[in-house]
Formats: sequence, C-alpha cells, structure tokens
Amino acid sequence: MTVSDHLAISPRSELRRRPDRGSRDRATLNAILDEALVCHIGFVADGEPVVIPATPWRIGDWLYLHGAAGGRLIRVVGSGAPVSVSVALVDGLVFARSAMRHSSDYRSVVLFGRGEAVTDPAAKAAALLQLVDKLSPGRSLLVRPPDDKELAATGVVRLAIDEGAAKVRTGPPAEVEKDAGWQVWTGTVPVSVRAGAPVPAEPETTHPPPPLRPWLRPE
Amino acid sequence: MTVSDHLAISPRSELRRRPDRGSRDRATLNAILDEALVCHIGFVADGEPVVIPATPWRIGDWLYLHGAAGGRLIRVVGSGAPVSVSVALVDGLVFARSAMRHSSDYRSVVLFGRGEAVTDPAAKAAALLQLVDKLSPGRSLLVRPPDDKELAATGVVRLAIDEGAAKVRTGPPAEVEKDAGWQVWTGTVPVSVRAGAPVPAEPETTHPPPPLRPWLRPE
Repeated sequence: MTVSDHLAISPRSELRRRPDRGSRDRATLNAILDEALVCHIGFVADGEPVVIPATPWRIGDWLYLHGAAGGRLIRVVGSGAPVSVSVALVDGLVFARSAMRHSSDYRSVVLFGRGEAVTDPAAKAAALLQLVDKLSPGRSLLVRPPDDKELAATGVVRLAIDEGAAKVRTGPPAEVEKDAGWQVWTGTVPVSVRAGAPVPAEPETTHPPPPLRPWLRPE
Repeated sequence: MTVSDHLAISPRSELRRRPDRGSRDRATLNAILDEALVCHIGFVADGEPVVIPATPWRIGDWLYLHGAAGGRLIRVVGSGAPVSVSVALVDGLVFARSAMRHSSDYRSVVLFGRGEAVTDPAAKAAALLQLVDKLSPGRSLLVRPPDDKELAATGVVRLAIDEGAAKVRTGPPAEVEKDAGWQVWTGTVPVSVRAGAPVPAEPETTHPPPPLRPWLRPE
C-alpha cells in the first residue's frame, strides 16, 4: 500500500458539511486516534447497521481492535467486510446568546475501509502489548505477556488508516449581530478527560502507579 | 408504542459477549444516554456502513439528534432507515499483572431501530431547547429561541429507545492465580470527563457562567 501524508477521499468520505472544519492530514488524524480511549465501529449485519464500542490503538498507519476470538467484531472485521470507525473527543461546550448558535468544541475522525485479521500469534502478542503501552508507556515490560491460550482466545483485527477525515471545531460562539442585546453569559466551558487518584487493588503495594500518557492529565 | 421498563431483545441486539455485564433496564440506559456528550450513529449507504458522531439528547423514551436540514444524517435517519447508535462513557483504566487482564471500566449503550423526522416547527423548537438545557439546566429560558429561518435550516430526528442494551464494567482487575508473583502495581485509574474554568467570550461580562449538570464535575 502506498502511504500518503493525506488520506484518500471518495463519495462516502467526502466532507459535505462544514468542510472548513475538515482535515485529511495524517498527523492530525493520528493524534486524535492516539488519544481515543474508545471508538465506535459500524458494520452491516443482515443488511442492517450495527455500531459497537471498542478500544482502538494505532500502530503506524493501522488502527487495531481486539475482542473475543469468536465474537462478531472479530469475525466481521477480520473477514474484510466494509466497516466505518468513528472517534470523537469533546473539548468544550460553547454557549451562545441564541439557542441555535450553541455548539461544542471537538476533534473527531471517521474512517472507512475493510479490515483484516491479524492471525500470527507473535504479531498478535506484539500488537496487544502496544495496547498496554498506549494506556501506560512501558507497562508491557512489567506485566506477564500473553500466553498461547490467551492469544488463541483473543482476536486482533486491523484497519488501514487510508480513507476518511478528521473534523476539528474550536473557538468562541459564532454569534449573529441581532442577538447582541441578549443579556447572558457566553463563552466556552472546556471539557477534558481526566485521571483521578489511582486506586490500588492491593492497598499495601509499594509499587508506583502506572505513568499515564500526557493527554490524560490529572484532575 | 407500548413502553416497558426494559428494552426489547432480538438476534441483532442479543448480548453474546459478557452478558453478565448487560442490562436492558430503561433507567440504566437513560442515565448513560443523559450523560453522553456525543453518540455515534451508524447507517447503511449504498450497501456500506457509515458511522458519524452526533450530539444526543433524550426526551422521555426517545433519543434525539439534530443536524443540517439537508444533511445525510437528517435525510437517512428521518427517512426511517434502520440505524444503530452507540454511546460509551469510560470510567477507568484497569491495570492487571498480566497484559491480557487489563481492562477498562465503562458504561455503554447500543440501540437499534428506525428513526423518524420531527417536522413540526414548534416540536423542533421545543426539542432543540431541551438540548440547550441538557448542557446547562435552565439556559433555554435565557437565550434567544430559534427563529423560523433557523428551524427551517435545522433537521431534528428521533429514535425510539426500545431495542438495545447497556453494558457496565466496574471493579478491580480480574487476575489469574498464576500471576501472583509479578511485581507490579495493579488497580484502577479512574477516568472522568471534567469541566474546566469557563472562558467568557466577553471578558468583561458580569453574567454568571452557566450551571452544569452534576455529571460534569469541575476539574
């Protein structure tokens, strides 16, 4: 596959609404995907749409997902059926003088494509350890690696990040002039995903809690 | 429509994996949907799945979405085509002694059904004002209500909350006995969506910033 700095476009991935907020720049998409603790993957089953949440992680230009080896997610995505993946990070609530100018700051990604199964046990294990490191860098070196039985029970699939787009909204409310007289607070309430104080499973532990990624700031 | 305290089940909405984590209790689903700042709605376009993010709000036993009147979301959902909606709130990262026992605490909802358009302008306006109040209770009384032009440019659709399920995971890592010797911190890092200090669009404002819902706690 030829990997470009920018993602491909097609009728299904064309940004019809607010293309000014759109980006196909790979670095922009990657940063959003890397920060996502959850994605939502859609596929067609018996002609009808199904969307389910999953934990995504990125390795290079691929988005990885895992699940029970016999589960529908793994079967469908691993079979190469068409899928769509959506991620959205909410960064703020935007309050305007008029109801309809309320908005939110966000960073989102929608991807399209056909997945594939990762079947080689060593490749599966390596990928799964990178998921552990996504949550806490370096942790894969500290924990027991997957054994053969665990690898057999777990499916890993991946989707090439090559068609789709990001959308980013930021900035103050887009007011309209006629609303100037409305007496109400306007502006943005920032919203972010924060990490609370670690709760050890064994209160007497002397091991340090796991370091987190910079995008998961303390409360 | 007959509304039950519990949602319906069908082959597409059967909980195949970890049914112990599942719930069809309407109060459980409602609480998750009410807290969601974003949902991901999937539909089938030209035989292929499309998933896009949207801002959901609930009125009674209906989940509402809005968008540009001529946009794909409004056209597809408003046409009564089958859709699936996924919401996931991440509550914690769960760190275990083995890579494969890592997990996350979460509350998720997946819904299935066919949407419908809300076309009556007064009903649209009333629904949209409830979205404003979802973000800040009482705010709909303080802001300029939608005018005819805004209502014509905005589509509102809704999906009956009557087929689907919630899943909730909570608790310490599910360790396996053979890992007892691994010397590493285990436990949960709570994760939550927090509100930062409000940033006024007009720094000189004397109006108080908008009150927020209890689930959106300050940082």
